[in-house]
Amino acid sequence: MPSQHIMRSFDEELRYLTNQIGSMGGYAERMVEQAVSALVGGDIDLARKVVADDEFLDLREREIGEKAVIVIAKRQPMAGDLREIVGAIRIASDLERIGDLGKNIAKRVTAVTESRQPMRLFRGLSSLSDLALTQLKDVLDAYASRSAEKIGAVRDRDEEIDAMYTSLFRELLVYMMEDPRNITACTHLLFCAKNIERIGDHATNIAETVHHIITGTQLAPERPKVDLSHKVTAPTDDDQSA
Amino acid sequence: MPSQHIMRSFDEELRYLTNQIGSMGGYAERMVEQAVSALVGGDIDLARKVVADDEFLDLREREIGEKAVIVIAKRQPMAGDLREIVGAIRIASDLERIGDLGKNIAKRVTAVTESRQPMRLFRGLSSLSDLALTQLKDVLDAYASRSAEKIGAVRDRDEEIDAMYTSLFRELLVYMMEDPRNITACTHLLFCAKNIERIGDHATNIAETVHHIITGTQLAPERPKVDLSHKVTAPTDDDQSA
Repeated sequence: MPSQHIMRSFDEELRYLTNQIGSMGGYAERMVEQAVSALVGGDIDLARKVVADDEFLDLREREIGEKAVIVIAKRQPMAGDLREIVGAIRIASDLERIGDLGKNIAKRVTAVTESRQPMRLFRGLSSLSDLALTQLKDVLDAYASRSAEKIGAVRDRDEEIDAMYTSLFRELLVYMMEDPRNITACTHLLFCAKNIERIGDHATNIAETVHHIITGTQLAPERPKVDLSHKVTAPTDDDQSA
Repeated sequence: MPSQHIMRSFDEELRYLTNQIGSMGGYAERMVEQAVSALVGGDIDLARKVVADDEFLDLREREIGEKAVIVIAKRQPMAGDLREIVGAIRIASDLERIGDLGKNIAKRVTAVTESRQPMRLFRGLSSLSDLALTQLKDVLDAYASRSAEKIGAVRDRDEEIDAMYTSLFRELLVYMMEDPRNITACTHLLFCAKNIERIGDHATNIAETVHHIITGTQLAPERPKVDLSHKVTAPTDDDQSA
């Protein structure tokens, strides 16, 4: 029964891609967790480890891409199967970017730890990263279980991340204005916060891909974006009246 | 002669993908040019136009991805042809990201124009963006002409971009320290500079993809990264002695 053999083997190929994504996802999660933990704890060794870890995701993404293309060419899959495979390529790309963002946070640990910053700023960053990581865990769960139910909640929470990021952005600006000695470290913290906010965006991208894999339809043409940090201005002597 | 018909039609499909990439590339270039020009000239209308333009690239990227997958499934291409098609998907994704970065610059125009900033900061940003746009033009030329010769120069120049970005980062920090009233606008300019530096990275990604399309080999496992901005610290009262 050669056709059954091919069917089983195709299923195995799909399962292989799904497992690889699961493993990349766990790895990306851990990188972000450790990067933020290194930042909050001023742990330069942990930060170095995270920077080195990033290569793993780059390799894994390339492998998944190559494998997926071979499967498409060999099997000529249609509809749901094709969505599975193209979805795997897209998710792998988002996870690779999440790893890059984690690495970028880790690279800033040394510059940030050179001066003492107030705990509340780190608490803000931690909360932001907790929220982004919850998003990531939930979309990876939704992908593993092919469950469309969790997807809606993920998207709503992305708005929470954007709002929290905008508020942290403002807080960091004010803190820089209070004392110019805070400027260097806070600038790096601003970039870290931006990176975490973008991790949330990538989790949302993954949610959209998972929704498309499961249902064959797009979640919506364009998610309303409520990250308003680009509009944030803080009061200065010039515009106290504003 | 049905087989010749299929061959010609396959060539047409490849040419279609190449043309679509060329059109996306020109569009992305213009978005970045206009975003930086809006920033330097404080032109809020132009900035709004750039923000609206971004949707075009999102749609085009999705179309190229869908078309490419159909071609792979239908034609089962091997070797060079497969590299062409997968390469088109990768380049479209980089161009879409370049558009996003241009849009992000445009979104910051309003916040930056609320206070006057010295021309030399804008000059720094303009030079950085000129360099990044030259990179982008050169890789798109290399792609259109399938010429591997230009690729080496692109990569060398990415180091120039990184060095210029790091120096601009430092300059912006110092300027913020001189006068806290500069902090808000300069923070947004920092993000704009970072976005331009990342446009250079995406041009380098495209260069690597083009090299792979033409030669079938990877340009190198990992490009040495010389963006040292994450290490930048500026002198403060606390560490004058350092």
